[in-house]
Amino acid sequence: MARLVMKFGGTSVANIERIRNVAQHVKREVEAGNEVAVVVSAMSGKTNELVAWCADASKLYDKREYDAVVASGEQVTSGLLAIALQEIGIGARSWQGWQIPILTSDAHGSARIESIDGSGLAEGFARKEVAVIAGFQGIHEASGRLTTLGRGGSDTSAVAIAAAIKADRCDIYTDVDGVYTTDPRIVPKARRLDRVAFEEMLEMASLGAKVLQVRSVEVAMVHKVKTFVRSSFDDPANPMPGTLICDEEDIVEQQVVTGIAFSRDEAQLTLRRVSDKPGVAAAIFVPLAEANINVDMIIQVVSDDAKTTDITFTVPQADFERARALLEAKRDELGFASLQGANDVVKISAIGIGMRSHAGVAARAFKALAEKGINIRAITTSEIKFSVLIDAEYTELAVRTLHTLYGLDKA
Amino acid sequence: MARLVMKFGGTSVANIERIRNVAQHVKREVEAGNEVAVVVSAMSGKTNELVAWCADASKLYDKREYDAVVASGEQVTSGLLAIALQEIGIGARSWQGWQIPILTSDAHGSARIESIDGSGLAEGFARKEVAVIAGFQGIHEASGRLTTLGRGGSDTSAVAIAAAIKADRCDIYTDVDGVYTTDPRIVPKARRLDRVAFEEMLEMASLGAKVLQVRSVEVAMVHKVKTFVRSSFDDPANPMPGTLICDEEDIVEQQVVTGIAFSRDEAQLTLRRVSDKPGVAAAIFVPLAEANINVDMIIQVVSDDAKTTDITFTVPQADFERARALLEAKRDELGFASLQGANDVVKISAIGIGMRSHAGVAARAFKALAEKGINIRAITTSEIKFSVLIDAEYTELAVRTLHTLYGLDKA
Repeated sequence: MARLVMKFGGTSVANIERIRNVAQHVKREVEAGNEVAVVVSAMSGKTNELVAWCADASKLYDKREYDAVVASGEQVTSGLLAIALQEIGIGARSWQGWQIPILTSDAHGSARIESIDGSGLAEGFARKEVAVIAGFQGIHEASGRLTTLGRGGSDTSAVAIAAAIKADRCDIYTDVDGVYTTDPRIVPKARRLDRVAFEEMLEMASLGAKVLQVRSVEVAMVHKVKTFVRSSFDDPANPMPGTLICDEEDIVEQQVVTGIAFSRDEAQLTLRRVSDKPGVAAAIFVPLAEANINVDMIIQVVSDDAKTTDITFTVPQADFERARALLEAKRDELGFASLQGANDVVKISAIGIGMRSHAGVAARAFKALAEKGINIRAITTSEIKFSVLIDAEYTELAVRTLHTLYGLDKA
Repeated sequence: MARLVMKFGGTSVANIERIRNVAQHVKREVEAGNEVAVVVSAMSGKTNELVAWCADASKLYDKREYDAVVASGEQVTSGLLAIALQEIGIGARSWQGWQIPILTSDAHGSARIESIDGSGLAEGFARKEVAVIAGFQGIHEASGRLTTLGRGGSDTSAVAIAAAIKADRCDIYTDVDGVYTTDPRIVPKARRLDRVAFEEMLEMASLGAKVLQVRSVEVAMVHKVKTFVRSSFDDPANPMPGTLICDEEDIVEQQVVTGIAFSRDEAQLTLRRVSDKPGVAAAIFVPLAEANINVDMIIQVVSDDAKTTDITFTVPQADFERARALLEAKRDELGFASLQGANDVVKISAIGIGMRSHAGVAARAFKALAEKGINIRAITTSEIKFSVLIDAEYTELAVRTLHTLYGLDKA
């Protein structure tokens, strides 16, 4: 007998027919003798509808009330799945975040889980009862208010619950059958990975792969939760195993590069001929930070006049105009000659823990991209990944080039 | 300064535009210096959608899970109204039933309120905060499960909260502007009542008038909550007062008959030539009660053979076929000659506390109906009302006849 958490996202519970299908997946695991906690998202589209109502009621809505409104989506699904399970003879009950309780910070709209009391769930297991848990939500203990964990937060609910109840495994069911070397819609030769290390998955999620919420991978890594990404659209009687996210020592055949990620949510800003004196970087980036604008890649090079410096950096597209206006307002103070911006850029990243022990991995990419005539606007590297910023029109070509270069194409 | 409860039903909060209109009603009362608790229903249509999903997931759904699912509708509205109030500068926060808490029995789907702790709401008033409360829902303390109060339960939430916080007044906002002498869609001469006694309102609600949940009137009567029924579609800046439901001693001009109610949800069954021996009534009605079939009017008369008896009674239309089948299965045991049924019947009732002190009130009706050629199938009377069962095709004629007879037509 094992104890496991199964998580189903919005498309997997989009209507009663699909909820019945989810119930069949749960039934399979219960009949195999497992103790099962299921974590569910809202039916697809529901959260967007609720968010739109809040924004319609007030552009500057109170996030505590937003949380009360949007948490209702998962509440509905949890009750419906419990009913669907009972209908096929599986004992089940729904649990809201506050009933367990799942205690969180009071950062409404993007709260962090602080602790989970697994004792009630365990008592349910002893009664042969599947726990159907509303994902995405929790409660702030001191205020007694409902909280939510941010978009994709049900992934984090699932992994954190798996840690709290010492589950042997956490299965994240989604609309794809695992983690791929890159997006198969762009690279038909993309391969499903059998295993990927926590650190690699964390970088992939951070760098644009949408398969898991970043925070959920952090929690899985810290608590060593064996996590599978797999498909809810497989035949419930005979599903595929999906991709295991695990410690790197559990991966036998280590690749240098495991996957290629890309993010279209990038905009580039370049300040030309900034006076090159101490404190100038702080003068630029502190105000951006204070305006909650998240700066990613930063490059500083000497200007063509050899006396001043050019500073290039990227921000999320949603913050592009705001960042530009903020810097223009400080033109005199910062003393730059011109401000240039580009919205049609993309960040391509290669991720692999093998990079730690292999030199020159990124250099091979620069050469390959140059041979295809792709200009690199900016580069950042870290221990297990590197990223290049390029013109958006080269996205597919660049991803395919790197995918082939690092031997990721399927046979 | 007064303390008051304002309740808004589903059509009053059907979309964000209408929720904004509700916020204006609340603003008026806050700016008049009142402490305000608002009780809201789910947006109209939402509860039906949620109930349909439960029924789709399982015909015999677990009522505990049904409660978790349907309680979400009021949760959404409470958060949205709090946001809409803040948007126009009124301090507000949402309260779910379990946050207050509103403790109920564990009769899931039709739970009864057992106690309400008003202290948290009062602390909110001290902070100049409107309490926006999700109606219809509560929590069963021992199990920690969500409960709901049955259709129309938000009325009961409002009146019970008014009692708990010792409100000076409870305003039930709805899509009509008060309680009428009868349904104005059938009798254009129906008059809005300025005042109606608790006992009369209780009978009207029980006998088919849909303006308030029966249970809410009971609670208002027991706790002497001054309750107004009024329209949410009035101009928020200049609303009409509606109808006050109050003690009978607060009604100066007492009418003999205050209102005419009618219920189309009736079906009649007649057992012919039942052997007239002790225990035969029990043999018929105990099995019906055990099958949860609610029997209303009962008439027993000697059959035309002068040796046996005919027994006629009514049941809700939804139970007609079930009751008929149950009795047919006991034909030998009960020993009746035939079983006749009619589904096209209606119950017309006249209600008025003045009946207590006036004799012959019902007799005048029997005569007036006979003059119009309307056959009376059954009669029941009590201290402050009488009801007649007639063929459905005479509904409008009978209601108008009684409305005129008792002087209820407007000038």
